[in-house]
Amino acid sequence: MSADIEGCKAALAHLDLDDNPKTVKQKSRDFFWYSPTLKARLDHVTADFVVAPRTEAEVIEAVRTAFAHDVPVTTRGAGTGNYGQAMPLAGGMVLHMKHMAAVKEIGPGRVVAEAGAIMAEVDKACRAQSGQELRLHPSTVNTASIGGFIAGGSGGVGSIRWGGLRDAGNILSIRLVTCEAEPRVLTLTGDEIHKANHAYGVNGIITEVAVPLAPAYDWVDVLVGFETWEGANRYADMVANQDAILLKELATVAAPVGHDYFLRHKKFVGRETHLAVAMVAPHALDAFLTVTARDRRAEVLFRSDRDDAQGLPPAYELAWNHTTLRALRVDPSITYLQVLYGAPDHVEKILRMTEIFGDEVPGHVEFVRMDGRVRGAGLPLVRFTTEERLEEIMAIHEAEGCPIFNPHRYTLEEGGMKQTDPLQLAFKRETDPKGLLNPGKMIAWDDPDYDFETNQLYLFPGLAAAS
Amino acid sequence: MSADIEGCKAALAHLDLDDNPKTVKQKSRDFFWYSPTLKARLDHVTADFVVAPRTEAEVIEAVRTAFAHDVPVTTRGAGTGNYGQAMPLAGGMVLHMKHMAAVKEIGPGRVVAEAGAIMAEVDKACRAQSGQELRLHPSTVNTASIGGFIAGGSGGVGSIRWGGLRDAGNILSIRLVTCEAEPRVLTLTGDEIHKANHAYGVNGIITEVAVPLAPAYDWVDVLVGFETWEGANRYADMVANQDAILLKELATVAAPVGHDYFLRHKKFVGRETHLAVAMVAPHALDAFLTVTARDRRAEVLFRSDRDDAQGLPPAYELAWNHTTLRALRVDPSITYLQVLYGAPDHVEKILRMTEIFGDEVPGHVEFVRMDGRVRGAGLPLVRFTTEERLEEIMAIHEAEGCPIFNPHRYTLEEGGMKQTDPLQLAFKRETDPKGLLNPGKMIAWDDPDYDFETNQLYLFPGLAAAS
Repeated sequence: MSADIEGCKAALAHLDLDDNPKTVKQKSRDFFWYSPTLKARLDHVTADFVVAPRTEAEVIEAVRTAFAHDVPVTTRGAGTGNYGQAMPLAGGMVLHMKHMAAVKEIGPGRVVAEAGAIMAEVDKACRAQSGQELRLHPSTVNTASIGGFIAGGSGGVGSIRWGGLRDAGNILSIRLVTCEAEPRVLTLTGDEIHKANHAYGVNGIITEVAVPLAPAYDWVDVLVGFETWEGANRYADMVANQDAILLKELATVAAPVGHDYFLRHKKFVGRETHLAVAMVAPHALDAFLTVTARDRRAEVLFRSDRDDAQGLPPAYELAWNHTTLRALRVDPSITYLQVLYGAPDHVEKILRMTEIFGDEVPGHVEFVRMDGRVRGAGLPLVRFTTEERLEEIMAIHEAEGCPIFNPHRYTLEEGGMKQTDPLQLAFKRETDPKGLLNPGKMIAWDDPDYDFETNQLYLFPGLAAAS
Repeated sequence: MSADIEGCKAALAHLDLDDNPKTVKQKSRDFFWYSPTLKARLDHVTADFVVAPRTEAEVIEAVRTAFAHDVPVTTRGAGTGNYGQAMPLAGGMVLHMKHMAAVKEIGPGRVVAEAGAIMAEVDKACRAQSGQELRLHPSTVNTASIGGFIAGGSGGVGSIRWGGLRDAGNILSIRLVTCEAEPRVLTLTGDEIHKANHAYGVNGIITEVAVPLAPAYDWVDVLVGFETWEGANRYADMVANQDAILLKELATVAAPVGHDYFLRHKKFVGRETHLAVAMVAPHALDAFLTVTARDRRAEVLFRSDRDDAQGLPPAYELAWNHTTLRALRVDPSITYLQVLYGAPDHVEKILRMTEIFGDEVPGHVEFVRMDGRVRGAGLPLVRFTTEERLEEIMAIHEAEGCPIFNPHRYTLEEGGMKQTDPLQLAFKRETDPKGLLNPGKMIAWDDPDYDFETNQLYLFPGLAAAS
């Protein structure tokens, strides 16, 4: 099976098609470079051309044509993912969803939007029309597309209240186009949603999603300071378990991250200060401050309703992978991990990791709800030295009962549960019989007998060689 | 100190004052008769007269006058409480808040209302003006006053999402009038709210409250049936822990309660059927049905969005103490308990109690959030035989690690933690130096050395003798 790139391009020339090598390469990238491991392996990756469909009919046409010419198709939104999930490892076509950005329907608790809609725009429309907003968004809400979030994300801002994207109820439906001789349009609901949620687009091209809404509030950003990392995390865990205090975001960040990397908040944060970062509903602020005052270790350093917030980024841009981004901007050698501090003693686990690694792995914990409980989702920074040491740090986490969701891998399996999702694999067999969709991201498709125990980085055999 | 009833009446004759013994007795009652123990002790209780103030100024005038004449003052709303908390044990004045029912201010996430406002009316106003509704309400929402709920309630419909009234954030402020020579008006916020929340009005007359709002939805009522009590509770616990499925209510009710006592739902419920009763947000219904379908023991028996709901009471009127009420209407010998099935194995505890008592104590569990976790708040029915057996049933619960909040007592302490709340007692010293407010409801005021270990019913020495 050899891709007929030129034939495909010619057949699609009437669409918005870009084959300028320079811009194609730009459009073939995501934020994979947060990982030095991925940066070393994927920096050269580029598609042959980019198609930006304007309608679902154009998506169908592009995919039908790609199928006929055996051309790989990698779908991308804004490319804000961090795992190379939107990068065309085998070249071919990048399907760029930027034109499909319509907010189609807003109702009580519900919005339907095209996959390429920027989440902040969806929020804006929902707020204006109905006083509602998205339950969940990544810290990149201002640039990320809603389809990309569902194809490649797992949760984010709002997860302290609503859990993650995998939880039943956080995605209402997914509409997608299959990659067949005659592409079909399928709408997934109920448990079928899992077939395409967090599947990196390997088994269908998401064209439209319906997601739930929550009431929109003028969230108040609060920074609370602590002398100890333990104090910050015990406090955050206490606040997170307050059922009546409506939060949109709650994270802890160890010193000196706040001072050294949150440059525009620096004046509020001492170098020895460990932070809790919160977004609080205005009508919950009194209660938030009340329980905060009960903790004598806590000092409120900044409140956006009280202090001059002019020129400051919103709190959610200090959280999730924006924490990492801010650190990277100051110190390009920094990278990060994704850690689950699980049941039953997540705070103990958070503290134990800091005890082991100290300032080599500055702590950053997102407090989220998971299966009805508050848990710590860690995105600690890592002062990177070598890949070997990075692997060792991850191995120590796992040995200590803190599972790693490895952000230094580009496959679904290695970045997730280190096993194949049989539902997603079976669905790919239905929707992508030639294996053209985002090749190299699902190990089980390429190598059903792959041994995940080796902990080696999977090297997709189809990965285009660096030139 | 002897009450000058006639002098007080004369001084307040220009207010809405009722001293017709028949109507005064009606207005001196609440729903204490759910308890055979309280019914035997309090049935004769009556005030000397009832004053229904129209304004806070009239409240102040009534209390100032009562203070001058040493007349006890028991404040009541709609009298939907079940502990005799609104009953004037020492006679005197009942202060009836029915005229003070204004909804004063509705904002994002927040409503301010006078204490006598009926909660359904508050909801109606909030919904009409802002698409919002109260976070929490009792099953008696259509008759109960918001001040009474805060003075005498602890949680209810909505607690599955928002926890209880004691949780910081579920009451925003309480405004009250003290009982002094010159009554003061105080506004409590933050941790001060606990001084008057669930204090039965012993330390101030609540005239106005501010409480948080949540978005209003057209909640869908669902009944799910199970062949076993275990199945119903394991299912409910699973659903309750789904962070993304927005519920307003979730309870389980053991067979044959649904069939025998939910008369208008009888056609949906077999006599052997154990029930889960839920209120689900419309945009969460798909996800609710999805996770329900995962449980092969579960059968959806009724959905208000699908089935003919004409003439049926709403789901919340099958829950909380409406479950008890429906049973009592069919079988007047029935009473109930209040049980906490606590950490960590609440479902095991629920099952264990049914194993011990069988049909003598038919199960009824409200799933609620408590300190960030899902817990079971039990309101099991009791097929009452004798007070001795009732006490024995409660003692066995406690011995098995299931604390009882005794609804067969009329004091704050015995119905609660069996200890005095020092904050509320200290506040009473400030606000009610003569001890005129709702006498007999706070043991610590009457008898600081009372021994709660005896488990005997506290008999208020000032309790007016039965005539």
